[in-house]
Amino acid sequence: MSMHDTQNERDNRRIPINKVGIKHLVYPIMVLDRENKTQPTVADISLYVDLPHHYKGTHMSRFVEVVNEHRGLVSLRSIEAILGSIVERFDSLTAHLEIRFPYFVEKSAPVSGARSLMNYNCAFLASLDRRARRRAAMDLIVEVAVPVATLCPCSKDISSAGAHNQRSQVIIRTRSAALVWIEELIGLAEDSASSGLYALLKRADEKHVTEHAYQHPRFAEDVARMVAQRLCADKRVIWFQVESENSESIHNHNAYAMIEGAGPAAQRRRKRP
Amino acid sequence: MSMHDTQNERDNRRIPINKVGIKHLVYPIMVLDRENKTQPTVADISLYVDLPHHYKGTHMSRFVEVVNEHRGLVSLRSIEAILGSIVERFDSLTAHLEIRFPYFVEKSAPVSGARSLMNYNCAFLASLDRRARRRAAMDLIVEVAVPVATLCPCSKDISSAGAHNQRSQVIIRTRSAALVWIEELIGLAEDSASSGLYALLKRADEKHVTEHAYQHPRFAEDVARMVAQRLCADKRVIWFQVESENSESIHNHNAYAMIEGAGPAAQRRRKRP
Amino acid sequence: MSMHDTQNERDNRRIPINKVGIKHLVYPIMVLDRENKTQPTVADISLYVDLPHHYKGTHMSRFVEVVNEHRGLVSLRSIEAILGSIVERFDSLTAHLEIRFPYFVEKSAPVSGARSLMNYNCAFLASLDRRARRRAAMDLIVEVAVPVATLCPCSKDISSAGAHNQRSQVIIRTRSAALVWIEELIGLAEDSASSGLYALLKRADEKHVTEHAYQHPRFAEDVARMVAQRLCADKRVIWFQVESENSESIHNHNAYAMIEGAGPAAQRRRKRP
Amino acid sequence: MSMHDTQNERDNRRIPINKVGIKHLVYPIMVLDRENKTQPTVADISLYVDLPHHYKGTHMSRFVEVVNEHRGLVSLRSIEAILGSIVERFDSLTAHLEIRFPYFVEKSAPVSGARSLMNYNCAFLASLDRRARRRAAMDLIVEVAVPVATLCPCSKDISSAGAHNQRSQVIIRTRSAALVWIEELIGLAEDSASSGLYALLKRADEKHVTEHAYQHPRFAEDVARMVAQRLCADKRVIWFQVESENSESIHNHNAYAMIEGAGPAAQRRRKRP
Repeated sequence: MSMHDTQNERDNRRIPINKVGIKHLVYPIMVLDRENKTQPTVADISLYVDLPHHYKGTHMSRFVEVVNEHRGLVSLRSIEAILGSIVERFDSLTAHLEIRFPYFVEKSAPVSGARSLMNYNCAFLASLDRRARRRAAMDLIVEVAVPVATLCPCSKDISSAGAHNQRSQVIIRTRSAALVWIEELIGLAEDSASSGLYALLKRADEKHVTEHAYQHPRFAEDVARMVAQRLCADKRVIWFQVESENSESIHNHNAYAMIEGAGPAAQRRRKRP
Repeated sequence: MSMHDTQNERDNRRIPINKVGIKHLVYPIMVLDRENKTQPTVADISLYVDLPHHYKGTHMSRFVEVVNEHRGLVSLRSIEAILGSIVERFDSLTAHLEIRFPYFVEKSAPVSGARSLMNYNCAFLASLDRRARRRAAMDLIVEVAVPVATLCPCSKDISSAGAHNQRSQVIIRTRSAALVWIEELIGLAEDSASSGLYALLKRADEKHVTEHAYQHPRFAEDVARMVAQRLCADKRVIWFQVESENSESIHNHNAYAMIEGAGPAAQRRRKRP
Repeated sequence: MSMHDTQNERDNRRIPINKVGIKHLVYPIMVLDRENKTQPTVADISLYVDLPHHYKGTHMSRFVEVVNEHRGLVSLRSIEAILGSIVERFDSLTAHLEIRFPYFVEKSAPVSGARSLMNYNCAFLASLDRRARRRAAMDLIVEVAVPVATLCPCSKDISSAGAHNQRSQVIIRTRSAALVWIEELIGLAEDSASSGLYALLKRADEKHVTEHAYQHPRFAEDVARMVAQRLCADKRVIWFQVESENSESIHNHNAYAMIEGAGPAAQRRRKRP
Repeated sequence: MSMHDTQNERDNRRIPINKVGIKHLVYPIMVLDRENKTQPTVADISLYVDLPHHYKGTHMSRFVEVVNEHRGLVSLRSIEAILGSIVERFDSLTAHLEIRFPYFVEKSAPVSGARSLMNYNCAFLASLDRRARRRAAMDLIVEVAVPVATLCPCSKDISSAGAHNQRSQVIIRTRSAALVWIEELIGLAEDSASSGLYALLKRADEKHVTEHAYQHPRFAEDVARMVAQRLCADKRVIWFQVESENSESIHNHNAYAMIEGAGPAAQRRRKRP
């Protein structure tokens, strides 16, 4: 049976489409894990290509076929393979892949050493552009959202006792010239906050975390700057963006700071001929 | 033109439907305001009836017509009128109405007196049952979600300085024999927490709020109990439920407490013949 | 070092708490899978106990310890073990566990047979009550949310061509006297709708799904009734609730129907002495 | 009493902050309405400034003061005034304002003429940069999210009867050299889809909408292109982005298309010396 292929019809509006594809395909995946080699998780996947002006539509089912074929391990290598398959199968100039997933890290409570898992929402945002001349044609942004605690320096300074503190979220996005582990970015965010969070804290741990936070007050601005400072000094980093957002315990709105910048690898890249 | 009325067809499956209707109709409304008489806001409205087993379907457009006719002021009186119109127009035994909306209260900062608006998510959950014999056949639950700050008593007790605190949410639901203002339930929740929240706090206010919270540590359990205690003593209250949920600043999960109970008006009601 | 145990203090307000515990602990779990024995997924877990009036607070960290100890396979057996551990460790009368997780089923497209995974949001809602006399003291509700397509019978009837259709969600909750697989409830919802959904459909499949939906028009009311009819006839079912909600393609609000009822196993249970 | 001003302390990390401010302040506002002059609604407001490297922190309460002072009508003029107040009060180079709100338009059903309100999520995204030399230093993006129906051309072509269709969302963002009404962008999106949505449709309207959608099949790609085509021809338009996303009724994931481009006013602007 030969069915009419509506998508392959000619389009005469002369308007190319920047991105066309599928959003929010929920799929189980395996990701690389620094401690345990791999960990299973559940991903929200979006995939796009550009569409030249003369095609009426794209074949959305092919995106799912590609995800299905590469299902299993999601790594830098497989992301590049997925994007490669896509530009080939769609005969497109560009391909874009967004994979969002919770990632688990086993942490020890600071005093008792009690072990538990913390979840961090991570993403790989990857693009391939056939027109790019360099070998490393894939552009990859790694994104990690780290829940932390922040204690307000101003509130501490002006109050006779206590200081307002709250759950905050630090989002770090990086492009890098060499592998930066998710665990490294998590550590960076947690070190820059008043305290990291834990799923399991015994009484002695809670005392430690409370006192540590009180001794390390941080504005949203401080957290963003401390993360930025270390990314600026990391030779692997090409580009970064850090967002810090506090669910203020004294307000019903949030405090926010964002810094975007270039890392040392960007400078090296520019210096090369 | 006479079109076939599919919904009016006979259904032979002999299965009545408990609730059938529309969900999430977004509509502008006016609500009663203790200070300013009325305030405009935006509501998310759901409306249901029961459907006897012999009808195939309901006429969903009629729900929107009823909302449209009563658009304008949403008050206890208009809610009863809406439910009355619905049971009549649908020839149903029961009708249910859920109206969710943000409600704004002007607050003065505790020291500077600086004025600003705080938003509270509120709801009216109303039902009418024709089979009920009593005159007050409408059942109405008023729901108010109040963001507050809670400071952990345990963290304060065991730590040399500071105490973890966070934004929390207190949800109060009541059935009452006489009008209870939204503003009263908000006050009840804020008084029971370590501190209320404000959109605008100057430096002196922030000092006050911080110190007040440190002097009034509250577990989620405490907040729920303090609200329950006062509702148990309020002669207007027939039934209540209070939920208290802390977005813990030391964990990535929440602490939660819930109490459900009867108020004095329930006892009076039972005593009557 | 002996730290003061604030939670163990005596509380004199004489108000017991219905539920106290933790909400939204995100944890990786393994669940039973009819085809592949087990599948890894990511859960959102809440755990509660009741708190007698004389205790000031509960020890929230113990909930996480219990989850951590039982981490791994989540099955009917392990859920009962978790609840058993909790009532013992907290010395409570009741314990409640809510586990929500996406669950994946491999499906074949109806014509091409192309295989892909579909995700369904599922939950186990379990309670244990020490005061219950019967041996099967655990109450368990299995909840499955099934995305489906519904095509409007009225729109089909009155229109010269076409009929509005849309993505809908069917939520089934059951208590049962014997194991009902998640896959069975998914099948029940998909059979009752105009069509099930697929991650991957080739052209011939899309034709089949479109025509099948056109030949099987369903109101939200129909879907709820067809599911209810089959649950009413399933000897294992004690209780059920089915919700059907259409993201109407002609409105910006949803159409909704809900039926709650008893299954054959409830009747058998009542007949027993 | 003179309290220490922590935010005004000198910061030696030499890292300027791109954006610092408040997010998600919920406030009642009035917006301009083409038919009724103004309409009340509820906004989610975010406000940021840049922070030079030598300041430790910003004074978050000032943002709320500015919102409070300008509370009332939100128009192009008042947005510019808010941004002007902010750069002055914070002594910053840039200021950013995001206001998101539901906006209501009264629509008549296509056959019966029955009137009802439809809600559209809109936003003003405005920035002021003191370093910009031109008089029109404020950059303003108007964003409108329009829920529509789309009917799949491929499904219609290959099927003997019917065609899958669904609720979709069209998001249009524009920068313009002269006022473009929200109502115009809504009309543009609705005209480009298979059909617009209505809160209230009687039987004859439902027939009309169903048949109209069947006669106007549209891929996500088509919708994006048709909107783009008209914005490309609108002399007021400087820049636009259009996103079209279908909640596919045959899949549990969405189909998506996005076009970004320049309008005629951009060309005029470039031609000027």
